[in-house]
Amino acid sequence: MEIHNNIFIALVHYPIYNKKGDVVITSVTTLDIHDIARTARTYGIAKFYILTPLPAQKELVHRILNHWITGYGAEYNPTRREAFLNVAVAGSLAEITDDIKNITGKISKTITTDARKFPNSIDYNNLKVELTKSDIFLFLFGTGWGLERGIIDNADYRLAPIEGITDYNHLPVRGAIAIILDRLLGR
Amino acid sequence: MEIHNNIFIALVHYPIYNKKGDVVITSVTTLDIHDIARTARTYGIAKFYILTPLPAQKELVHRILNHWITGYGAEYNPTRREAFLNVAVAGSLAEITDDIKNITGKISKTITTDARKFPNSIDYNNLKVELTKSDIFLFLFGTGWGLERGIIDNADYRLAPIEGITDYNHLPVRGAIAIILDRLLGR
Repeated sequence: MEIHNNIFIALVHYPIYNKKGDVVITSVTTLDIHDIARTARTYGIAKFYILTPLPAQKELVHRILNHWITGYGAEYNPTRREAFLNVAVAGSLAEITDDIKNITGKISKTITTDARKFPNSIDYNNLKVELTKSDIFLFLFGTGWGLERGIIDNADYRLAPIEGITDYNHLPVRGAIAIILDRLLGR
Repeated sequence: MEIHNNIFIALVHYPIYNKKGDVVITSVTTLDIHDIARTARTYGIAKFYILTPLPAQKELVHRILNHWITGYGAEYNPTRREAFLNVAVAGSLAEITDDIKNITGKISKTITTDARKFPNSIDYNNLKVELTKSDIFLFLFGTGWGLERGIIDNADYRLAPIEGITDYNHLPVRGAIAIILDRLLGR
């Protein structure tokens, strides 16, 4: 088993655009937690954060995690438990970077991903090379209609969008994360 | 826009193993339809079939498709409608291959995918070459604890499992399909 001790990911529920372009807090989706935890575990991600500032949503995630880590789910599906052991809830980006600093002793470099194109984006081959360096990396994945522009502008890297073979560019975040981790970390 | 007129996929709900190894019919999951339809549309798949022999489950899928294709959903989210236009329901594998024969005039070659390893499996690079031939291909993706062994044995190709970088091998089917289509058809 190999774990990337320098690679962290976060699923961001705030600040996010809604369909109309307003900045909102999106709702946590149970299946996101399951799917992304399993994908993160498969690709050896150090820790997967679910970022939401809402106490009730944080409590919901805690309840789901507890069910699968120490509750009935742990017995029913031990591999799900294993995936959920690396999942954490955080109220803000600062809280995540603080936690990563506690774990690694370093300030993490942030990487944003988006279906939209931005200037100065980095492609998959070049980012793959960056990830082999001794830095600590935090991927920020958006929900809803995408990450608020300020987060993208302040990131250390903006990863180029996934392109399929058509002009249709509406992958679910669960699928996009699977593809991105496979491209960057797959065998 | 480029569409692979020779590549079809199916999400199989029967015959499938459950946790205990019995052959069962699994339940249709709404989110599977959404996620896989969007991924299939992104990678230019000709048609995505949802295979279940249960009339009530077929009816459920039809209702979901109608909501997004002609109902309120079509107005609310036109890109979802576009993805769902290429989705169909089928009661058996024979029904799918008949439909593909009606569309293309040819008998499709089946490709099974599984988290388990099988003898005589084909790897991603070799299958990529096969897909450029003038044959018609049908990918069969399992649900639950995987496709029944007879389907795998009778397939024309058995695709090698996805390997991440760890020994953890429990990707969600939604993520696995995204990774497989990206590896075989992505730019």
